[in-house]
Amino acid sequence: MPELRRDPVFGRWVIMDSKHSKGPLDFSKEDNTPTRQEICPFCPGREYQTPHEVDAVRPSNSPADTSGWMVRTVPNKFPVLNSDGNFQKEGMGIYDQMTGIGAHEVLIESPDHDKSLTELTKEEMKAVISQYQSRFRQLSKDSRFKYVVIFKNFGASAGATIEHTHSQIIALPMVPKTVLEELKGAEAYHQSHGRCVFCDMISQEYQDRERIVVENNSFLAFCPYAPRYAFETWIIPKGHNADFVHADDITQTHLAQILQDVLKRIKNVLGNPSYNYYLHTAPLGYVKWACYHWHIEIIPKLSRSVGFEWGAGLHIVPTFPQDAARYLREA
Amino acid sequence: MPELRRDPVFGRWVIMDSKHSKGPLDFSKEDNTPTRQEICPFCPGREYQTPHEVDAVRPSNSPADTSGWMVRTVPNKFPVLNSDGNFQKEGMGIYDQMTGIGAHEVLIESPDHDKSLTELTKEEMKAVISQYQSRFRQLSKDSRFKYVVIFKNFGASAGATIEHTHSQIIALPMVPKTVLEELKGAEAYHQSHGRCVFCDMISQEYQDRERIVVENNSFLAFCPYAPRYAFETWIIPKGHNADFVHADDITQTHLAQILQDVLKRIKNVLGNPSYNYYLHTAPLGYVKWACYHWHIEIIPKLSRSVGFEWGAGLHIVPTFPQDAARYLREA
Repeated sequence: MPELRRDPVFGRWVIMDSKHSKGPLDFSKEDNTPTRQEICPFCPGREYQTPHEVDAVRPSNSPADTSGWMVRTVPNKFPVLNSDGNFQKEGMGIYDQMTGIGAHEVLIESPDHDKSLTELTKEEMKAVISQYQSRFRQLSKDSRFKYVVIFKNFGASAGATIEHTHSQIIALPMVPKTVLEELKGAEAYHQSHGRCVFCDMISQEYQDRERIVVENNSFLAFCPYAPRYAFETWIIPKGHNADFVHADDITQTHLAQILQDVLKRIKNVLGNPSYNYYLHTAPLGYVKWACYHWHIEIIPKLSRSVGFEWGAGLHIVPTFPQDAARYLREA
Repeated sequence: MPELRRDPVFGRWVIMDSKHSKGPLDFSKEDNTPTRQEICPFCPGREYQTPHEVDAVRPSNSPADTSGWMVRTVPNKFPVLNSDGNFQKEGMGIYDQMTGIGAHEVLIESPDHDKSLTELTKEEMKAVISQYQSRFRQLSKDSRFKYVVIFKNFGASAGATIEHTHSQIIALPMVPKTVLEELKGAEAYHQSHGRCVFCDMISQEYQDRERIVVENNSFLAFCPYAPRYAFETWIIPKGHNADFVHADDITQTHLAQILQDVLKRIKNVLGNPSYNYYLHTAPLGYVKWACYHWHIEIIPKLSRSVGFEWGAGLHIVPTFPQDAARYLREA
């Protein structure tokens, strides 16, 4: 029997499509193994091909823009937003526009062209997470920015155009729509229940257990009750915390561990698919959003989005989260 | 200079990516020419391979489920929602679910396997539109349904799995999220301005002119100021009307004409790309949404969606609407 499910934050209904139910073998396979490239601008020795680095994890005696780094962040050579200039808003009749002020950076996660996140050592993976936080802190200081988005596209189907492992960071002059809706959903729940909706979700997941993938001391990984996509998986801190910026050293170590663990499980179960992940956190410097609870959402790219999703905002999902979680748990 | 633009209905900002600006030749090409298939279940003579037809445009003396039809609507053989059963809502701890009651139909737009919408005669195209309305009227009578979605996926990249030209109709037990947001956006604008936001948009488009693609007596086709996708095009009735159900015979003729015209322009300019279109109309029987203004949104599938869109709800668009409109206008 098909089932409609509603998520408690957005109030978004999804259709669980039991008639086209899909397990891991029912999705078309992709090969995302890196091929050695002679001209990769992200490889060590070609630091001169990128804009000047803005941050890095590298030995303290090694100069910027030379090799020897473990993680390296550079401005995107073709940014979607400009970092120079002043912020201006303007009306165009009934329409609004503003100048595209922002930052767009690339965080190169490893010097090794052949490695993906799943193959990094613990120390290397931890360096990626601490670099995320370092960029967050740095960009937060610019008062023109209202929100910082950290996300990763892995594989061509997920939008990656360079295969050398990397994440992207975009700082925006406004809080984007989906984030704002999520914040408002969390606020509304807090007002009516006096509790954090994400904390309640965690309790519910422990009670039901069937959607849990894996956990460690600081984090829970689970497939959400009303996912938008098959095998969608969230990683959430067990303790309430609005803002990723507050994650301390041990929390970062635990995040590195569980993120890599979940990515390995996705790779094992689904055959190295393309994926996106995205860090959801409270907007910069807004005390008002203390009711929020930061987390990471991971979406394996297993099927094309179709007209129905953008047209009606209604996702049709071919894999129940308890089945996805079981496959990932047993991987 | 990159530019952020906000649409007046949703309040959704988009990034106009001037650094990666794309014209028609910059998108990868697809071949969506139909290949003759021996076993297509939508071809005449194979009516027994589909569930029993629920509606058709066919000569009055020709029985259902036989050949001779011009347009034919059948239940989807693998529906995402069930048409039998009663509507039940249930709480699952903090989560909500309801039974997947609804209708899922396929509207076969031509008996000819080799034709696409752009190749239909005027009479055939008109028959498609009047069949849309006929299904709308019929499904509106079922009090379990709150919303009817008519949409078309053309080409594999847009999610079409059968190439024989067809649309889909889904009747839902609730109003989906994106539709509800659009309705609320229109209502908020009406409350503060005392006017329809879509009527104001039409005035603005006539004033600016640069985003207009084509028009006829009843409809305007234009590329919206803050599109989510390159070459996104809307077709909207010039006169205020909340509900597609009210479109009379001459309006249907004009809609058939302009829809086919725009699809031909997209094909000529972009080389027969995959596309989705979707009819946005007021929910069934709700007088309260008289402030709404029905329309069709057409999205050519030219690039993959990436992490940033689902993660932040922020679209990065490589083609300014005035450029897209110019290409389509001159096609």
